[in-house]
Amino acid sequence: MLPPDLSARLKRDADGLVAAIIQEAATGEVLMLGWMNDEALRRTLTEGRVTFWSRSRQEFWRKGDTSGHRQVPLRVRLDCDGDALLIDVEQTGAACHLGTHTCFTSDLKITV
Amino acid sequence: MLPPDLSARLKRDADGLVAAIIQEAATGEVLMLGWMNDEALRRTLTEGRVTFWSRSRQEFWRKGDTSGHRQVPLRVRLDCDGDALLIDVEQTGAACHLGTHTCFTSDLKITV
Repeated sequence: MLPPDLSARLKRDADGLVAAIIQEAATGEVLMLGWMNDEALRRTLTEGRVTFWSRSRQEFWRKGDTSGHRQVPLRVRLDCDGDALLIDVEQTGAACHLGTHTCFTSDLKITV
Repeated sequence: MLPPDLSARLKRDADGLVAAIIQEAATGEVLMLGWMNDEALRRTLTEGRVTFWSRSRQEFWRKGDTSGHRQVPLRVRLDCDGDALLIDVEQTGAACHLGTHTCFTSDLKITV
């Protein structure tokens, strides 16, 4: 269980999830965004590995167990309204399942 | 309306929203996470200002209209599965409504 004082601060969506932004500590690059329920956050804070809740597969997903591309959490911060986490990680290999270092590879056109 | 090819790539949650990570271009600091529906994204891509959808107030929220703390989008990227945006911005003043530069001010304890 998460500590009750922490649990009380989370503002979960309808599926019981908060967003987790993964930022590479060494470079400042934002690598991906995942989702966490209370138990995924608890594991992330206590296991030395980032664990998400997979919305598509409806199961826990400890990053790197299949791919080897582990994420070690170095710092975990909660935002002011409790619906988002920012996690500084040490990333092994590619963060994206498509093999790129970051999941944010598609530029959208700004037309002002 | 969003261009149909872009609209088709978005993976919205039950409320029709995607997550939008705001990163300060000059520093690499992650400032906040907001939510966008199709129209908020369209405005962000075409108005030179970041616009969110406020989940709590259920209305569009163009950052800085009340506070003066504007966000000018310099680069907008979509992630591999279409449920998250990464937006590099030029931030005026504090990004957080509590007056801090970033919304991520609360460190959670890692116990490994």
